[in-house]
Amino acid sequence: MLSSAWRRCVGTGRMNLSLRRGHREALALAREEIGFEMIRGHGMLSDDMGVYREVEWQGERQVRHVFAYLDEVVDSYLATGVRPFLELGFMPEALASGDQTVFWWKGNVTPPRSYPEWQGLVRGTLRHLVDRYGIEEVRTWPVEVWNEPNLSDFWQGADQAEYLRLYEATAHAVKEVDAELQVGGPVLSPGADEWWAPFAEFVTRREVPVDFVSRHAYTSGPAQHVPFGVYQDLRPPQHLLEQFAAPAQHLTGTALAGLPVHISEFNTSYRPDNPVHDTAYNAAYLAPVLAAGGEHVESFSYWTVSDVFEEAGVPASIFHGGFGLLTHGLIRKPTYHLYAFMARLGEEVLAEGVDHLVTRHADGRLAVLAWQPVDGSPVTAADRHHVRLSVPVGAGVRRTGTGAGSSEAPQPGQPRTAFVLRRRVNESDGNAWTAWQDLGRPASPGARHLDLLLDASRPAVEHSSVAVHGGRVELDLHLAQHEVTLVEVEAVRDSTPPWLDDTRIPGYGRP
Amino acid sequence: MLSSAWRRCVGTGRMNLSLRRGHREALALAREEIGFEMIRGHGMLSDDMGVYREVEWQGERQVRHVFAYLDEVVDSYLATGVRPFLELGFMPEALASGDQTVFWWKGNVTPPRSYPEWQGLVRGTLRHLVDRYGIEEVRTWPVEVWNEPNLSDFWQGADQAEYLRLYEATAHAVKEVDAELQVGGPVLSPGADEWWAPFAEFVTRREVPVDFVSRHAYTSGPAQHVPFGVYQDLRPPQHLLEQFAAPAQHLTGTALAGLPVHISEFNTSYRPDNPVHDTAYNAAYLAPVLAAGGEHVESFSYWTVSDVFEEAGVPASIFHGGFGLLTHGLIRKPTYHLYAFMARLGEEVLAEGVDHLVTRHADGRLAVLAWQPVDGSPVTAADRHHVRLSVPVGAGVRRTGTGAGSSEAPQPGQPRTAFVLRRRVNESDGNAWTAWQDLGRPASPGARHLDLLLDASRPAVEHSSVAVHGGRVELDLHLAQHEVTLVEVEAVRDSTPPWLDDTRIPGYGRP
Amino acid sequence: MLSSAWRRCVGTGRMNLSLRRGHREALALAREEIGFEMIRGHGMLSDDMGVYREVEWQGERQVRHVFAYLDEVVDSYLATGVRPFLELGFMPEALASGDQTVFWWKGNVTPPRSYPEWQGLVRGTLRHLVDRYGIEEVRTWPVEVWNEPNLSDFWQGADQAEYLRLYEATAHAVKEVDAELQVGGPVLSPGADEWWAPFAEFVTRREVPVDFVSRHAYTSGPAQHVPFGVYQDLRPPQHLLEQFAAPAQHLTGTALAGLPVHISEFNTSYRPDNPVHDTAYNAAYLAPVLAAGGEHVESFSYWTVSDVFEEAGVPASIFHGGFGLLTHGLIRKPTYHLYAFMARLGEEVLAEGVDHLVTRHADGRLAVLAWQPVDGSPVTAADRHHVRLSVPVGAGVRRTGTGAGSSEAPQPGQPRTAFVLRRRVNESDGNAWTAWQDLGRPASPGARHLDLLLDASRPAVEHSSVAVHGGRVELDLHLAQHEVTLVEVEAVRDSTPPWLDDTRIPGYGRP
Amino acid sequence: MLSSAWRRCVGTGRMNLSLRRGHREALALAREEIGFEMIRGHGMLSDDMGVYREVEWQGERQVRHVFAYLDEVVDSYLATGVRPFLELGFMPEALASGDQTVFWWKGNVTPPRSYPEWQGLVRGTLRHLVDRYGIEEVRTWPVEVWNEPNLSDFWQGADQAEYLRLYEATAHAVKEVDAELQVGGPVLSPGADEWWAPFAEFVTRREVPVDFVSRHAYTSGPAQHVPFGVYQDLRPPQHLLEQFAAPAQHLTGTALAGLPVHISEFNTSYRPDNPVHDTAYNAAYLAPVLAAGGEHVESFSYWTVSDVFEEAGVPASIFHGGFGLLTHGLIRKPTYHLYAFMARLGEEVLAEGVDHLVTRHADGRLAVLAWQPVDGSPVTAADRHHVRLSVPVGAGVRRTGTGAGSSEAPQPGQPRTAFVLRRRVNESDGNAWTAWQDLGRPASPGARHLDLLLDASRPAVEHSSVAVHGGRVELDLHLAQHEVTLVEVEAVRDSTPPWLDDTRIPGYGRP
Repeated sequence: MLSSAWRRCVGTGRMNLSLRRGHREALALAREEIGFEMIRGHGMLSDDMGVYREVEWQGERQVRHVFAYLDEVVDSYLATGVRPFLELGFMPEALASGDQTVFWWKGNVTPPRSYPEWQGLVRGTLRHLVDRYGIEEVRTWPVEVWNEPNLSDFWQGADQAEYLRLYEATAHAVKEVDAELQVGGPVLSPGADEWWAPFAEFVTRREVPVDFVSRHAYTSGPAQHVPFGVYQDLRPPQHLLEQFAAPAQHLTGTALAGLPVHISEFNTSYRPDNPVHDTAYNAAYLAPVLAAGGEHVESFSYWTVSDVFEEAGVPASIFHGGFGLLTHGLIRKPTYHLYAFMARLGEEVLAEGVDHLVTRHADGRLAVLAWQPVDGSPVTAADRHHVRLSVPVGAGVRRTGTGAGSSEAPQPGQPRTAFVLRRRVNESDGNAWTAWQDLGRPASPGARHLDLLLDASRPAVEHSSVAVHGGRVELDLHLAQHEVTLVEVEAVRDSTPPWLDDTRIPGYGRP
Repeated sequence: MLSSAWRRCVGTGRMNLSLRRGHREALALAREEIGFEMIRGHGMLSDDMGVYREVEWQGERQVRHVFAYLDEVVDSYLATGVRPFLELGFMPEALASGDQTVFWWKGNVTPPRSYPEWQGLVRGTLRHLVDRYGIEEVRTWPVEVWNEPNLSDFWQGADQAEYLRLYEATAHAVKEVDAELQVGGPVLSPGADEWWAPFAEFVTRREVPVDFVSRHAYTSGPAQHVPFGVYQDLRPPQHLLEQFAAPAQHLTGTALAGLPVHISEFNTSYRPDNPVHDTAYNAAYLAPVLAAGGEHVESFSYWTVSDVFEEAGVPASIFHGGFGLLTHGLIRKPTYHLYAFMARLGEEVLAEGVDHLVTRHADGRLAVLAWQPVDGSPVTAADRHHVRLSVPVGAGVRRTGTGAGSSEAPQPGQPRTAFVLRRRVNESDGNAWTAWQDLGRPASPGARHLDLLLDASRPAVEHSSVAVHGGRVELDLHLAQHEVTLVEVEAVRDSTPPWLDDTRIPGYGRP
Repeated sequence: MLSSAWRRCVGTGRMNLSLRRGHREALALAREEIGFEMIRGHGMLSDDMGVYREVEWQGERQVRHVFAYLDEVVDSYLATGVRPFLELGFMPEALASGDQTVFWWKGNVTPPRSYPEWQGLVRGTLRHLVDRYGIEEVRTWPVEVWNEPNLSDFWQGADQAEYLRLYEATAHAVKEVDAELQVGGPVLSPGADEWWAPFAEFVTRREVPVDFVSRHAYTSGPAQHVPFGVYQDLRPPQHLLEQFAAPAQHLTGTALAGLPVHISEFNTSYRPDNPVHDTAYNAAYLAPVLAAGGEHVESFSYWTVSDVFEEAGVPASIFHGGFGLLTHGLIRKPTYHLYAFMARLGEEVLAEGVDHLVTRHADGRLAVLAWQPVDGSPVTAADRHHVRLSVPVGAGVRRTGTGAGSSEAPQPGQPRTAFVLRRRVNESDGNAWTAWQDLGRPASPGARHLDLLLDASRPAVEHSSVAVHGGRVELDLHLAQHEVTLVEVEAVRDSTPPWLDDTRIPGYGRP
Repeated sequence: MLSSAWRRCVGTGRMNLSLRRGHREALALAREEIGFEMIRGHGMLSDDMGVYREVEWQGERQVRHVFAYLDEVVDSYLATGVRPFLELGFMPEALASGDQTVFWWKGNVTPPRSYPEWQGLVRGTLRHLVDRYGIEEVRTWPVEVWNEPNLSDFWQGADQAEYLRLYEATAHAVKEVDAELQVGGPVLSPGADEWWAPFAEFVTRREVPVDFVSRHAYTSGPAQHVPFGVYQDLRPPQHLLEQFAAPAQHLTGTALAGLPVHISEFNTSYRPDNPVHDTAYNAAYLAPVLAAGGEHVESFSYWTVSDVFEEAGVPASIFHGGFGLLTHGLIRKPTYHLYAFMARLGEEVLAEGVDHLVTRHADGRLAVLAWQPVDGSPVTAADRHHVRLSVPVGAGVRRTGTGAGSSEAPQPGQPRTAFVLRRRVNESDGNAWTAWQDLGRPASPGARHLDLLLDASRPAVEHSSVAVHGGRVELDLHLAQHEVTLVEVEAVRDSTPPWLDDTRIPGYGRP
């Protein structure tokens, strides 16, 4: 069985950006074509969401919680068919103990000046959500405490003791609202595996609730800066899978062993301005990760669905190395296509390899994902790759979707041909980024250029009829550089009436 | 200048079918992507439109005109941005002098039993249209009297004298409503050029109004029947252009010389069940006709926009050789793509040839249509074709649609590269008909198969950057069998910032 | 509990009309606002659906089943969220034993010339549907054999023996496809209760499958004809409920006792051109029928959803006494509003009366339907009616949908006020028919007039805050002539902050 | 003639908020139903639009202009059919001379640290817009220099000399791009008429281009603060018209006399948190202003179209006294209805009064706006108002939009009846604000409550048929408290066939 961990969640920029039309259109498109089930973003409690408010009335300070924006965001998620994966953070200025911020949009990363007031905010927020959406619904939403507290950029001083205090206060506040809400942490960045032991020890000793654990995974090295961007090397893709597997390994033998693990962010580079995100290379690199990631974790969440994202400021160009599967203007990037290909795979895995994944649908159709293996190194991969597979068709093919026939009688026997439809994404096909280079990299393409880029972004489609021998079809797949390809194969039930003879059509006769 | 005669009008089945959702969606799609300006169909006055009604009240027969369906149809045309090209016919049963009918849907093709009552119907209908849509609007709609009266299938006995009588009565009735309404005929089928002289003589002698003349053009030979279909040979495409030119030739020296000529129907085969209509061959065959037809006539109207059409009964399969540019389910056929390619051409013609048409837009962009020439004969054309063109770019290129730049200063000088985007339709690309063959020709594909066919129906898209030398670009176009191709070329304004170096992206470095 | 029999099914004209855009829009609107679950129409096998086809090939006759139109119709139903209630009929011309037809659109009502070929058609059709939509889905679709065979208009000679033969052959053919498909009959018109006994006797004796029984119900008297229309008197509404109850009574003691009963058509008048269908009177008349009908039967299906209907020919005017809940152009008639009001009722019935139905939703909200009782007689009802009700609110009110609050603490105690929103339909409010009369009855209103009529068709909406005393609210409802009214009542949770004082707004201060 | 100054422009919050989905939906709705032609907002050059960027490359500082967000905003305006009214401001941080900011969202209000760099930004921005949208288009967009420089909140120190310097530098920069671009100022707030003389003197003396002048108009007094809101008294509505007229008066005799005057903001209160904006009172108050404002100025722009607005922070409740014609969630406020009523008026003014405006369309239809006059004082107005009018109908009535008739002959003579359709907005009808009060003021209503509020927000609609005597109709309009009403009157062309007799319908007979 192919786990659906790969599409259980996707990331997004700060929650306020979900109010943007461009963001909502991107999420709706990805929901429809890929089927993401949840979405996770930062800044739910930051001031641009307007939740935590202090006012003075008749000489007294009063706290008010205002959920208008949060409701609009969550309403829109649910209307799109996607549930929120809640991340509690960052700190409202009025509740903060300091003024350190992260990102261009200035999320406050200091502890609360009062833990009881923070707990009030957590309880008030979750009670409101339960009130509005119903307890059965909200129990399906993971609630994560903060983001990457092991980094001083995200949590003042990367103070572990203070994070454990925050975690404890928060987890109890969540459970006060409802004991079955799911709470978890510690949302570590890569390179912080030394936090697992103290986290497990702390929550065990103090009997703090933990329903799941989570971490992030990236494989990029140090950033080499240029204006509006960076370059970075990558480790091999296997390294991502190792990061996925790490929490379970580190928690073995602790009270947290066996808890669900969410990779609540992952990507190649952790920078929102690394051009690798826009490339076919990124798709080829991630193909084996998507194929195998579900063997390790409950979910792994691509960071992010859309280039509507401002952690490094307002993007300077339509392609700017953003995390998004989709650009502003809704151009599908190669990695988007990889996800869309995954969404067409069958439930049953027939074969896995370093460059392919063969799956079968319940009705017998096959879907094969193949890719050129790449290793993250700076140098160019070979300019082609060859995958040869023999796959079974026809046994147990259900009869569906074919329409009229010449008689009532079903057709017996084995199919003689299979229909093969192949979709290709590489440096040329399904690649608006290279088309945009050919166009001279217009920063903000006008409507006409955008239309050309959208046309260039569609995967190439090839169809053919292939012979079935002994219930099998031979697939001989030549991949171009950095190609990710999807091949769909189904046994043909021939409905051709006996009187048709295409050679009688002008131009089709035998010469 | 490239005349827009090629898209001034398109045909449709009987007007009642315009009430169908499938028809409206097809028209809307074609309007948006091709830009047809008018639409013409049969049966406006046939009983399934319910216009002419006789009732009895207090012992007296009364005539009522009911315009509910006609209004719904015309409203929908106008809402789509398309105007009606009115064809007055066929005969309401209650007004008919006989019971001969044409088509599966039984249009009555006999003269009126009373010319005054027919005139009343014509006046009533046009007055209603003027009342509802305004006189300025209705004056732009050609009003054609009957359809192919030279064929006994369409006009009882192919009685010329009776048709002239009908024409006279009708033309006067039209002008009684408003002298500036445009009326015309005689709507001849191919092979009836002997009607021109008597028509011209008659209307001249009796001072009957004629604002335009019209005829039809097809190039298919005798039908060889099989169940649900026919095969036919075709004459060469030049023969269509000769038919376009014929009215002007035949009317030279008559009082009708110089009148606008409308080809109010044309296609390869005149049968709604000839598979040639579904092929890439049909597109390649018609490419030179669309390129040159406007040199002869005011309009030439492809018969028809959609396979929602029932002259030979309910279609037996999604692909059934129908006239439509679009199938049921809105699959674009190759000839649809030819039209969509035409719609992307520029206004200025730089070069014409037997296999190409080079055009330029006002902003300097080029659009080149190329095709494999075919001659209509049964035998297969060569499996490839080569077109080599040298085209000018860059001089006079307007700066549009490029977005941000690094400075205020415009870039001087000649472009060094051009962006080339090519779209291809042939036996494999942009060809759902051959994909459907590969699928085993399902008569009524289910949703999943329909989606595959829609994917297979998209033209292949290729992009590249080519060098500009001496203000020109060399295009070396290899066409596959029966290919029609569109090449768009524009000078590039390079916006690449100096700090970008793609070789620093993982996988793109020099090995 | 309020049964949902009232919305389990709705009728439509012949199935071919479901291809019309106007029909589909009507069905989609009714589905969204009313929630009909199934749709039933005539003519599934009539020639304009093109299913049964005979061709000759190599000297032999062959039968082909063509499902293109049927698939398009069923696809559209399912896409709208509505399932088909299949009626097998009428007879394809090529399979008919005679040429008697019914309706303007000429459905053939003669027995098959060959029962084996008819069975082949039935099996072929159901096998195709199972193939396309899956067996689980198709098992939920009732399959009815023919329509009103007790009337000689619908079944040649109203020949009971022949119908029983048809039923037997058909039921067996259905079950050959799948034993769990549901088949039933005898689809009687009103006034044919003498058929129940022989039907029950026949199917019992010969062991013919019957999964449900069905009949129709109308209360109109003889037609008094005028051009394009009729007038008829009506029996009281109770008479409809008696017709609903009749099958169970007549089958008591037979082997068919206890089978599900479907009223597969009902309305006031059985004529598609009786103006009563357009009136508020029709809504007031049917209100008690919708309120109580579910006590008698599994479903009762309003005939029909839309005025896109042609049994008496093309309608002569936008309002023409058609069966539709919606006109051409999608104007909601008063009876449509009655249905939409029903759709807002709660699941629990608190009180029923001759002029009201009080219901409660699971969350404690009340929904009250009230109407002026009318009896079907020609004379005018009183010009007003008064309904006074005391209803409980507040106990067990769930907290939902209210948004932000000033604190975490839930509000304790009883509500002090209730929010009341009332919607009214009568001779003036929510009544485009009387507005159309005021406009001079334009037969085919232009866009501007249609917009005015759409505005006039909206129910009046009134809101108020009423005091809660002892957990109850007093409703004092004054109804205008022929009014149907919906009153929604919910306990208020007051979120007004203490600092608000509306009298400080200009114009709202106390004078 | 009724000038269209009232809908020539509408205001919006900072331009960045135009990226929000809620904003775009509001603008699209208002465009469709009201027809605003232009839109003006603050903050085009503020940092959240990301236009002005400084980077370092190879040791040198470089300026880049990034137009991605600006393009997205302007694209969306134009796609909606609305043009931008450009306001140049506020200052990018990197270009600012100080750090004073205005609003919750912190627009920098200090002069540029370098006027040449500011001019570069102005030129770069306008050149880009011309490049993208074409010079003909951009010449239609007014370009305003800064906002309310006479207030120290908006321009550091309210420094007049510095503003004149800014104006001069900016106007020249604009004209360097194209001499026909329209530039203007000084965008004064109310109470700053002493600026007109020095502005006129300065630009005349130094030959600075001025194509139009602009100011703002509000009538509210000092703010009385409560949490999340204020209360204020209002001056009478006539005071707004006096403010409209002031620029022309003050510029009489100067070189600027006769220039177009734009009121680029107006409303009752200048606060985004005054509940008066949500009331029917606001509509009644503004009715005479909208009726007469076009006599004084080229445009007067309601501030603002939507409650998507954050100058005072994130709104704390769905109704919060925001400027918007539409709330979050797209509830139409009473003042929105006033605008929508204005949009239904005819071009010709037949009569004006203190409580009414009678207009006629080109086709003879009348549209009458009536309102209860109010004066802005705190005390409550009378609870009703009576307007009696005699209006002409029928002469010169064009025949349009009526559809079928019984014969060809047009109907002669005078109409005997008129169709009257009245729409009402007052404290109960068309008033979601009072419904929301009845509901207990939920801060963030859930989907079900929002639907109720949307239903409650529709104006009441009443239709009737009234007799025409002597070519006139008597209108006797009883208005409820704070009512604004629209009455549409048109002569009826009666199409009733002779055989219809409604008393033959059950329930409609004479008793």
